[in-house]
Amino acid sequence: MNTCKYDKCVERWGTFEAEMPGKSEGNPFTDYTIQGTFSCGAETKTVDGFYDGEGIYRIRFMPSFEGEYTFKVQGSFSEDVFTGSFKVMQASGDNHGPVRVSHTYHLAYEDGKPYYSIGTTCYVWELQSRELQKKTLETLADSAFNKIRFCIFPKHYDYNLGEPASYPYEGTPMDSSVLTPENFKEYDGCPKGNDFDYKRFNVKHFQHIDECIKKLMELGIQADLIVMHPYDRWGFSEMEPECDDLYWKYLIARVSAYRNVWWSLANEYDLFPKKTTADWERYADIVCEKDVYQHLRSIHNCRPFYDYSRPWITHCSIQRQDLYKSSELVNEWRERYKKPVILDEIAYEGNIQHGWGNISGKEMTRRFWEAFSRGGYPGHGETFMNEDNILWWSHGGELRGESPERFKFLKKIMDETPAPGLRPWEKAMWDETAATVDDCLGVHKYYLFYYSFMCPSFREYYFDDDTEYQVEVIDTWNMTIENRGRFKGKFKVEMPGREYMAVRIQEAK
Amino acid sequence: MNTCKYDKCVERWGTFEAEMPGKSEGNPFTDYTIQGTFSCGAETKTVDGFYDGEGIYRIRFMPSFEGEYTFKVQGSFSEDVFTGSFKVMQASGDNHGPVRVSHTYHLAYEDGKPYYSIGTTCYVWELQSRELQKKTLETLADSAFNKIRFCIFPKHYDYNLGEPASYPYEGTPMDSSVLTPENFKEYDGCPKGNDFDYKRFNVKHFQHIDECIKKLMELGIQADLIVMHPYDRWGFSEMEPECDDLYWKYLIARVSAYRNVWWSLANEYDLFPKKTTADWERYADIVCEKDVYQHLRSIHNCRPFYDYSRPWITHCSIQRQDLYKSSELVNEWRERYKKPVILDEIAYEGNIQHGWGNISGKEMTRRFWEAFSRGGYPGHGETFMNEDNILWWSHGGELRGESPERFKFLKKIMDETPAPGLRPWEKAMWDETAATVDDCLGVHKYYLFYYSFMCPSFREYYFDDDTEYQVEVIDTWNMTIENRGRFKGKFKVEMPGREYMAVRIQEAK
Repeated sequence: MNTCKYDKCVERWGTFEAEMPGKSEGNPFTDYTIQGTFSCGAETKTVDGFYDGEGIYRIRFMPSFEGEYTFKVQGSFSEDVFTGSFKVMQASGDNHGPVRVSHTYHLAYEDGKPYYSIGTTCYVWELQSRELQKKTLETLADSAFNKIRFCIFPKHYDYNLGEPASYPYEGTPMDSSVLTPENFKEYDGCPKGNDFDYKRFNVKHFQHIDECIKKLMELGIQADLIVMHPYDRWGFSEMEPECDDLYWKYLIARVSAYRNVWWSLANEYDLFPKKTTADWERYADIVCEKDVYQHLRSIHNCRPFYDYSRPWITHCSIQRQDLYKSSELVNEWRERYKKPVILDEIAYEGNIQHGWGNISGKEMTRRFWEAFSRGGYPGHGETFMNEDNILWWSHGGELRGESPERFKFLKKIMDETPAPGLRPWEKAMWDETAATVDDCLGVHKYYLFYYSFMCPSFREYYFDDDTEYQVEVIDTWNMTIENRGRFKGKFKVEMPGREYMAVRIQEAK
Repeated sequence: MNTCKYDKCVERWGTFEAEMPGKSEGNPFTDYTIQGTFSCGAETKTVDGFYDGEGIYRIRFMPSFEGEYTFKVQGSFSEDVFTGSFKVMQASGDNHGPVRVSHTYHLAYEDGKPYYSIGTTCYVWELQSRELQKKTLETLADSAFNKIRFCIFPKHYDYNLGEPASYPYEGTPMDSSVLTPENFKEYDGCPKGNDFDYKRFNVKHFQHIDECIKKLMELGIQADLIVMHPYDRWGFSEMEPECDDLYWKYLIARVSAYRNVWWSLANEYDLFPKKTTADWERYADIVCEKDVYQHLRSIHNCRPFYDYSRPWITHCSIQRQDLYKSSELVNEWRERYKKPVILDEIAYEGNIQHGWGNISGKEMTRRFWEAFSRGGYPGHGETFMNEDNILWWSHGGELRGESPERFKFLKKIMDETPAPGLRPWEKAMWDETAATVDDCLGVHKYYLFYYSFMCPSFREYYFDDDTEYQVEVIDTWNMTIENRGRFKGKFKVEMPGREYMAVRIQEAK
């Protein structure tokens, strides 16, 4: 007997899936093994499968090459060995493969297309009502965002006191009716009243996560998964190491074959009272070993940065450390870490009481431009009070701020940037943010200047004597691009003396 | 023969002046001495007189007490000894005496009235046309400014290539018709073409400076005199030590009896190619010895700060060192130097090409509020391009920016602040600028919160259980104060979710 249901055909960087019956006695999440080996001429990879409830096991695989693959799945979950073959077709549509580090400081899809990250954060959007999730996806579809950070575990925090749509483990949660905005912090960690089995996953919770990742993939959005976070009243942030490791392996087995997955080991790793660097490094070991696709990996701080120079960290995932200076430090971080600098939290546009959640749309947009025109990649969040207590930052829904519209404009400028992306221009004046292409080949001469809250009525430029440059004056707030024509040698560009202006100068074609 | 013309009557902290004939053979600026001793019951002071041209010598004195003073003037300038007496009446009107350091971090007039500094810079306003000088004084009279920084020597720099109304020395300047905005830097320092005698002052130049200081005094404005500066094409910044010292002594003898004088040893001391710390310390020695009134003394940087912990420095005179963070560092500077922190240059509102001269009115106003609500004192400048090339920052004239109107509003808030002024409140949240009264007596409970580019829709406050507090919500940009009534214990203040809001909370009366 060898009844394995599986896809006969899959795209390159698509997700092959095979479904097999197996043992369900005892605890199928801990008691049995399941592994599969996938081969074609160019690669052979061995991955774990996982138990998906009701006697069903699954194994998923992301092929990195076109061609004919064969597979063999076995383990203690079944007396049988499951084998088969499938065909991998070329990638179609917006499938460019997983995102990789490119040219040290940048990102690109595996097919080479530059990926200019412009992210947002909705911590637990996928654990809200179906209607709200639908709205969030519609909002994302109509946005500039190509990355979203969200948590696998539910969130307990100010504005996040209700019950999530589902829990990751079998069992029952504490009674949330006792919670108020005043007392919620007393329930941090692992108080009494919860009755979860941290060794038995609620497969429906994870099936839903799978679906959400796939929906994001369809929208061309990277799913930056926050695997652990400290805003917790159910004990998920303080499980035993054995349970943590089980969770990591289960999650990796389930979702690593989705090309749009990124691993964020933690949101605010430094706020976990009981976890040490050794813990984070152990999780990193697991993900490096078990995620055979080597998706992007990082870890996000509240206050001190994790040591981003650790080899397993592919990119900086920064929360700004200063109330006033955030994106302005991208140059420094690039130099220090020699990795892509992603500003996952530079404060959120909004009007809540907390300083991390009430910067103006203008300041948010300014920080985005400062980041991009220094060769970094900015991230957004939004926290506007409203009668429903639905805040984009945690719940998704609709965007209300002034900045997201401006990000569409910025995204257009980003998309027009020569690969692999920008770096700080070494000849920038002290009073401007200036970028050029991060490319030693120097094929295309390109410069982007950003003037922030400065309001020059003109600026003078000189690059060389011979090249003819096309000059555009960009109003980053009013979202206009004025073509000023062609210039050579030393030239002067008239500007409107307003805030938030940029100047794009590139070799005329 | 003992014919000395002098004032018979003067106000406390007014300027007594006596005029005497004397020798004019040789070089009266270097060849003769003149000193006077002034006495009443409470004080005896000896000061230098000075040659004022056409055979006339003068001596000036600022009495610090009411009562009957006698004086005796003598020296090699004359065979005669001049004596006399005069009566010192009580101070009247806005005469509160010279400004002194008060309670370590603050300033107050000698009669105890707090002086909350809110300065501006017009480097060489007094060397422009008569008409423009008149306009500048009218503008100042209608402004919030109570201090102005300006230079004794003319200025050579971008937008400052014309001839000044007068030169400080006898002689002739180089031909300025050769200068252009492109080549002017080649003429920095002491090029050929000048023919000045650095030992013979042009008394008309200095008589005019005297008049300007007096006019500012009438307006209640402190004259923060920039004695030396590097923006020079006439050699004034590179004179021999002997000439420097002569200049210092001459200037001190002339103007130190004006109560509104402050000494700024230099603008951008670090840009003088030939001066060393030993030079600055020597000038400081001269001013400490010769200015018997001990007017406020500081020295202004371009890049590195001078060591503000030097005992002769009464207050920090800071040029911001970072493009983005300026006033936000007041807390740090207060702690480091334990002196009043005056932000003499935090960039100027304007639209010229230079980053120091093109911040928006909003950013300027924000920096002013950040400074004041941290216990520091902000300073302004303005650099708007216009057809006449008259920029407030150097030439005075009219103000065109959006910030000066807001300073009047801020000045009102400042004037309502309990003495001696504000200090950072130690219980401030990380996401607010909060100040309380810098006063260990704690007579009046007072708190000022500033939210900068943050837009909270509410904030919660708690000081104590018993005091009744009056709460006002201040829109620092739209210049409104909303009285929100009285609160006790822990309370919540609704806010409009806009930028640039402040909250003033003080013990209800």
